[in-house]
Amino acid sequence: MRTALTDLLGVEHPLVGFNRSPGVVAAVTNAGGFGVLAASMYTPAELDAQLRWIEEQVDGRPYGVDLLVPEKFAASDPDDLVASLRAQIPDEHRAFVDSLLDEYQVPAVEDPDADTLDEIAAAINPAGAEALLDVAFAHPIAMVANALGPPPADLVERAHAAGVVVASLVGQRKHAERQLAAGVDVLVAQGTEAGGHTGTIATTVLTPEVVEVAGDHPVLAAGGIATGDQMAAALALGAAGVWCGSVWLASHEDITPRAIKDKFLAAGSSDTLRSRTMTGKPARQLRSAWHDAWDRPDAPAPLPLPLQPMLAGRAWNRLHAAAAEGHPGATALDTYFIGQVVGGFRELRPAGDIARTMIEDCTRRLRALGELAR
Amino acid sequence: MRTALTDLLGVEHPLVGFNRSPGVVAAVTNAGGFGVLAASMYTPAELDAQLRWIEEQVDGRPYGVDLLVPEKFAASDPDDLVASLRAQIPDEHRAFVDSLLDEYQVPAVEDPDADTLDEIAAAINPAGAEALLDVAFAHPIAMVANALGPPPADLVERAHAAGVVVASLVGQRKHAERQLAAGVDVLVAQGTEAGGHTGTIATTVLTPEVVEVAGDHPVLAAGGIATGDQMAAALALGAAGVWCGSVWLASHEDITPRAIKDKFLAAGSSDTLRSRTMTGKPARQLRSAWHDAWDRPDAPAPLPLPLQPMLAGRAWNRLHAAAAEGHPGATALDTYFIGQVVGGFRELRPAGDIARTMIEDCTRRLRALGELAR
Repeated sequence: MRTALTDLLGVEHPLVGFNRSPGVVAAVTNAGGFGVLAASMYTPAELDAQLRWIEEQVDGRPYGVDLLVPEKFAASDPDDLVASLRAQIPDEHRAFVDSLLDEYQVPAVEDPDADTLDEIAAAINPAGAEALLDVAFAHPIAMVANALGPPPADLVERAHAAGVVVASLVGQRKHAERQLAAGVDVLVAQGTEAGGHTGTIATTVLTPEVVEVAGDHPVLAAGGIATGDQMAAALALGAAGVWCGSVWLASHEDITPRAIKDKFLAAGSSDTLRSRTMTGKPARQLRSAWHDAWDRPDAPAPLPLPLQPMLAGRAWNRLHAAAAEGHPGATALDTYFIGQVVGGFRELRPAGDIARTMIEDCTRRLRALGELAR
Repeated sequence: MRTALTDLLGVEHPLVGFNRSPGVVAAVTNAGGFGVLAASMYTPAELDAQLRWIEEQVDGRPYGVDLLVPEKFAASDPDDLVASLRAQIPDEHRAFVDSLLDEYQVPAVEDPDADTLDEIAAAINPAGAEALLDVAFAHPIAMVANALGPPPADLVERAHAAGVVVASLVGQRKHAERQLAAGVDVLVAQGTEAGGHTGTIATTVLTPEVVEVAGDHPVLAAGGIATGDQMAAALALGAAGVWCGSVWLASHEDITPRAIKDKFLAAGSSDTLRSRTMTGKPARQLRSAWHDAWDRPDAPAPLPLPLQPMLAGRAWNRLHAAAAEGHPGATALDTYFIGQVVGGFRELRPAGDIARTMIEDCTRRLRALGELAR
């Protein structure tokens, strides 16, 4: 399948796999697709190690990184970033989360990662992204993607000077226009059915809208794509390829806790919702008792990014630890980002198998569609 | 394009056009697709006249009707249906709607249709549907579709005895299973992006889920389909055809008031929402000042079907009349059912042209997809 995307990236198939697990990124790239690592999940030192590991696996094949650079950021003291952000989390919010975990009898845990988690959340800002980009540009990345608004001008300049493709996720036509004006090369049209940060327009409608404004720039469809048929549908909508995130959470290589993966395997496509309670921005995730609690009349409103992930982070560590031991309260509350395709999860498989099956099934479907029009 | 649907219905193209305007139904059938009339918008006498008119246009080509038969219905006195339902509308609700129209200075109108509107709303029940079915079965209809839950057993028996195909709209996999158990022949998988009554699962995800449970029964995709590319995408998802509603609201033949059509032409794909304020059930429609008002803290909760459409019906007649004269308050409040595809509306065109363009573009896209897999 040769498209504007495969030509641009020098890959065999127009399948981009986005994940926070380096094992998934390497597997997608090695299957002839293009793996993208969620760099914002890591400190700069961790990112450096992850990228080095990926390069050892992919034998020179191309891969990319994804960053979160929000347009608006909470006012903070750059010299004491974590502490100045922590101080902005209201006591009411801390008390609400603590009482929720107590209500579900989730045991407290020693949490050696808590400071690291806060550092990672606090780094979701232009300066933090810059530190991650310094690491990424020291590696042979082929693409840098951004999910939260147009990239800063210096990011685009720096990428283009290094021959790196710039991609951006968009949820509306007007966002696509702003991204193109900012110099972005590839647009990812992310429909409402996608996991993670997402808007309200479905992939069927959004993809052709973005294609219409993109001109010669390749457009990837994202959201609702976990099979070869769905990949073929994206190509029918005018996309030059697909950007898949959720499907890899059904892979062995993905590092999401097994207790959450088990919830995914049991879930239907109606069991997700868009909520601000994990990051402060609307993100699709598996519906759980956590969301019921935040919907109560006495619950506070979620905080903006990055305060909400700092608030929620400690809760997640405590929940994940207890859920891993089969704790029923923690299991009821636990959740993670996932799209509506979760309803199709049946078993965990190797990420490379998932990628190859999608590509084969897509090819078969495209041939059948060609026959239909004879 | 030969599919399980075209074989079943004896039509040339797998394009079903659903609309309340007989002109659209005839145009779609005459373009080689299959037109379906929204029968629940009419009294039995009106329906009889509409079907007779359609038959004069289509020269024996097949067409169908769609009914709303809700599973649950407000308790009422069958001998005095309209009065007993009217009595169930709380004064608070009447006062809210009256004060809203006064707030926007919408002039009162002589409303000769008010009693007819109430009769039509009150007839959205099994007995009312029976009266419309008696009319429909006296005509050479080829399909009867139902949008609100499984059809009653006697409807399926009666249709099959008459050689009439039974179709049902579904928004979840479990609904599809119940419909198949009720004897339905064709399933319409209606994604959240669709106009009118709709669920939360997007077409990309819902269509393959319904195809999986449907076995040999043809599945139509609905929601997000207004172009040939979107039609090709639906076929890629495993559908045997498409069920399109919103796209015809951009046709000359459609009877939606011009003031609302002008709002559609100006709207983007983000300008719709799912709301209970028109029918009592979640239905996608153009966002307007009407919805802002129902979201206020002092607004009452919408009533169940058919009380909410009886409540809203008089408001709509008053709004439409004033909006037709260019009244700014009425124009701000006015709205109608529409899907996210409204963002692609550019001009009004003949319905037959819309159908033919979709079919031609779909054929072209299918051929291109076949080439891509060579």
